[in-house]
Amino acid sequence: MAQQIDLNADLGESFGTWTLGDDAAVMRSISSANIACGFHAGDPHGMARTCREAVTAGVGIGAHVGYRDLAGFGRRFLDVDPVELADEVLYQIGALDALARAAGGQVSYVKPHGALYNAIVHHEAQAQTVVDGVKAFGGDLPLLVLPGSVAAERARSAGLRAVGEVFADRGYTPEGTLVPRRDPGALLQDESEVVRRMVRWVSGGTLTAVDGSEVRVEAESICLHGDTPGAVSLAEAVRSGLEDAGVAVRSFVP
Amino acid sequence: MAQQIDLNADLGESFGTWTLGDDAAVMRSISSANIACGFHAGDPHGMARTCREAVTAGVGIGAHVGYRDLAGFGRRFLDVDPVELADEVLYQIGALDALARAAGGQVSYVKPHGALYNAIVHHEAQAQTVVDGVKAFGGDLPLLVLPGSVAAERARSAGLRAVGEVFADRGYTPEGTLVPRRDPGALLQDESEVVRRMVRWVSGGTLTAVDGSEVRVEAESICLHGDTPGAVSLAEAVRSGLEDAGVAVRSFVP
Amino acid sequence: MAQQIDLNADLGESFGTWTLGDDAAVMRSISSANIACGFHAGDPHGMARTCREAVTAGVGIGAHVGYRDLAGFGRRFLDVDPVELADEVLYQIGALDALARAAGGQVSYVKPHGALYNAIVHHEAQAQTVVDGVKAFGGDLPLLVLPGSVAAERARSAGLRAVGEVFADRGYTPEGTLVPRRDPGALLQDESEVVRRMVRWVSGGTLTAVDGSEVRVEAESICLHGDTPGAVSLAEAVRSGLEDAGVAVRSFVP
Amino acid sequence: MAQQIDLNADLGESFGTWTLGDDAAVMRSISSANIACGFHAGDPHGMARTCREAVTAGVGIGAHVGYRDLAGFGRRFLDVDPVELADEVLYQIGALDALARAAGGQVSYVKPHGALYNAIVHHEAQAQTVVDGVKAFGGDLPLLVLPGSVAAERARSAGLRAVGEVFADRGYTPEGTLVPRRDPGALLQDESEVVRRMVRWVSGGTLTAVDGSEVRVEAESICLHGDTPGAVSLAEAVRSGLEDAGVAVRSFVP
Repeated sequence: MAQQIDLNADLGESFGTWTLGDDAAVMRSISSANIACGFHAGDPHGMARTCREAVTAGVGIGAHVGYRDLAGFGRRFLDVDPVELADEVLYQIGALDALARAAGGQVSYVKPHGALYNAIVHHEAQAQTVVDGVKAFGGDLPLLVLPGSVAAERARSAGLRAVGEVFADRGYTPEGTLVPRRDPGALLQDESEVVRRMVRWVSGGTLTAVDGSEVRVEAESICLHGDTPGAVSLAEAVRSGLEDAGVAVRSFVP
Repeated sequence: MAQQIDLNADLGESFGTWTLGDDAAVMRSISSANIACGFHAGDPHGMARTCREAVTAGVGIGAHVGYRDLAGFGRRFLDVDPVELADEVLYQIGALDALARAAGGQVSYVKPHGALYNAIVHHEAQAQTVVDGVKAFGGDLPLLVLPGSVAAERARSAGLRAVGEVFADRGYTPEGTLVPRRDPGALLQDESEVVRRMVRWVSGGTLTAVDGSEVRVEAESICLHGDTPGAVSLAEAVRSGLEDAGVAVRSFVP
Repeated sequence: MAQQIDLNADLGESFGTWTLGDDAAVMRSISSANIACGFHAGDPHGMARTCREAVTAGVGIGAHVGYRDLAGFGRRFLDVDPVELADEVLYQIGALDALARAAGGQVSYVKPHGALYNAIVHHEAQAQTVVDGVKAFGGDLPLLVLPGSVAAERARSAGLRAVGEVFADRGYTPEGTLVPRRDPGALLQDESEVVRRMVRWVSGGTLTAVDGSEVRVEAESICLHGDTPGAVSLAEAVRSGLEDAGVAVRSFVP
Repeated sequence: MAQQIDLNADLGESFGTWTLGDDAAVMRSISSANIACGFHAGDPHGMARTCREAVTAGVGIGAHVGYRDLAGFGRRFLDVDPVELADEVLYQIGALDALARAAGGQVSYVKPHGALYNAIVHHEAQAQTVVDGVKAFGGDLPLLVLPGSVAAERARSAGLRAVGEVFADRGYTPEGTLVPRRDPGALLQDESEVVRRMVRWVSGGTLTAVDGSEVRVEAESICLHGDTPGAVSLAEAVRSGLEDAGVAVRSFVP
């Protein structure tokens, strides 16, 4: 059984007067904060505050890079020229890193957001250019992505560490992919079931798929949602459940 | 007589499909490039290209930080909360620095743009917060501002180097301030006059004001405009004139 | 005693994934909805939904025009060129009107938002240009503004109806201006006091100022806030209090 | 032979300080101006000026609606939720119409821009929602689109007039589709050839495809480009060539 696991969630997704999620509360349960960088969400002042909270809580800071699409919250595929996307990724990492360093921390990994995350599961050119952007920043930051994705493969080819994640409250197909959101079983609503599921996954590496079969998911981090109703409670429950089972919650970055 | 002087100009001010100025041509004549950081102008891909051109040309890279106002090109006063402005300055410096480092350079100074530049001549809270943002980035980057401005004073109080600049093609009052743009004598159109004026200023530190009197301007850099008709020609002429007079054109950053 | 009065509140201020206020609930108590037009808040889809809710509830639709400043929610003074501001006002009214007409309604008045509202209390050029924009739209829509403001005066000079408003939960000075937000007595927290105050104002035209004196406020509408905690409850209480006192709540537009 | 034909071009595509194309010059040769509406390009003040120029020149005003993507100039596919896109189209038409009416004109047709134009050649949901947005505006404005596109078909099903266009300087395949931009023969560079080609097409309805075969293109308008080098000259040449051949250049809107 794993001695430790990482819990990650999306934070810093407010913008100006509009707030989203309860960053301070979620921060208490996680070990990695994916912080928005201003392209899909996040303004500099809010990002700075989230960085300070992460440093105080001893939580790792990840650059949650996304498409330049505030109106769509980065959740809509945008057919960006790969040549431009690499520089957009680099811009976002650099901006967040400056805020993180002023807070006494630093960006320690990169996680693509929303539609970009989904695109680079299969989109070769965008996957490569995200990797190029991360490489260009220097320091060979790990990339937090879907296990088995093109992005993971390209990251490894470029000498980056690709960290896979499992989704705490999402249903899985027997093939190990996520049940699409519109299908039955896509979202697990029962908090205690989610906790049991994650404790079991940490101990054995498998989940029960929607058809009842067992499916293996190779991952080093558990993704929690930061902005849904019940997000704070679920985060606390998963952390407590893991710790009660003897699993330490720790960032995947040494 | 000064052995050397810095020539600075605003570059990287294109945005997406819209281009502005002839960066590559102006770059050949200057020693410091104030590169837009995405808030008043500049997109990551264009900023990256300008950084590469600056590195190739051996030109210093300055973060040309501005108000978040693409529609107004940062030329309209915006009453930003100073608490937020410091983080916006920091965000912009960090973003450009990441692109600069990927190009083999780094941000070596900061110059506020447009309405922000003008505001911090007198606006104490905004001047202080710009200085705070620069300090927060670390490395104590010099701040390129108007001589005698509140910003210059606050920078020095905070332990930063404040570098003053003189405007090559602007008229001066006997008090050493710029002739307002709407008044006669605000803009010098004659290229050879501008060159003579700058060579004379470098040699003696004084300019002829609009009323014919001599006015002393303490500065370490000459500001050229990058986006006006004749900008390329004027930049070349000023540089040649200075070099012919035995003055080396060099960045104020050692 | 007045037989009827208008209640107005700001609605449609969500943007993309970010929501603000409980439009549907506030809509039940008001007679005029100031709907954001996309410059300080509001996206087309949300604006359309708010228009449909207003039409269903029989509530008047006002164009809540603001500075182009999503990051600052239109709450920061922006020194826009008046020539440009008139067209920005016109653009916003036209955009909302198209959505309103598709919903079976139409824009029936204009209320400037936030920092623009405050600016045109005194700023002559911006006040005039807002009036110019409203005139250019045609139909001579009423302008909902601060009583005694330059904007009210310019509107009347241009042949527009200027509708004044009183703020339900704000303290007033003996001169009839608002107590600045940072001073004691700026905000009234006691719901029943606010209700009594508004019923009394409707009946006699006066309010008790912070120093205990009586101050007369000439207005045809009461402004409620739509996005503060307790906004829904306060709106319901003010409406009920007025109706119990025999005052009908009706739009100021015939 | 046709007695008349429409010439359309994209105008009003400047944004703030950034200018694009020579609207005033191109306006002299065309009969229909596709004016940007602020989503992919165009600010209210520039849009207003272009509307005034169109009214003065007797040129029809079309709403050139696009994706909300200033950074990409609306040239990148954006996977917008169709429910939202209809309202975005409506918002843009309404905004431009207010400016057009203030200038003494009105929006008389709608032409989707860039990636949206290309998407609705095949994308059924987006094509339908663009049609829905145009219908919602009222007045059943004609839709200027690619002949044979899904958009054309959906427009006609909804009772709208679908106006097809032929591209003056683009090569065609034997199937009547455009030669992709990266392939040989995509762009015709020779001005006099373009003129002869268009005069011949107006007289007989056919073009010579890249393989030398004749291809029939059913269209009521010729699309000229407004922002390429030589755009002004080409527009003048095509108009003169048509008029010399006895063809009147007139808007397709009666």
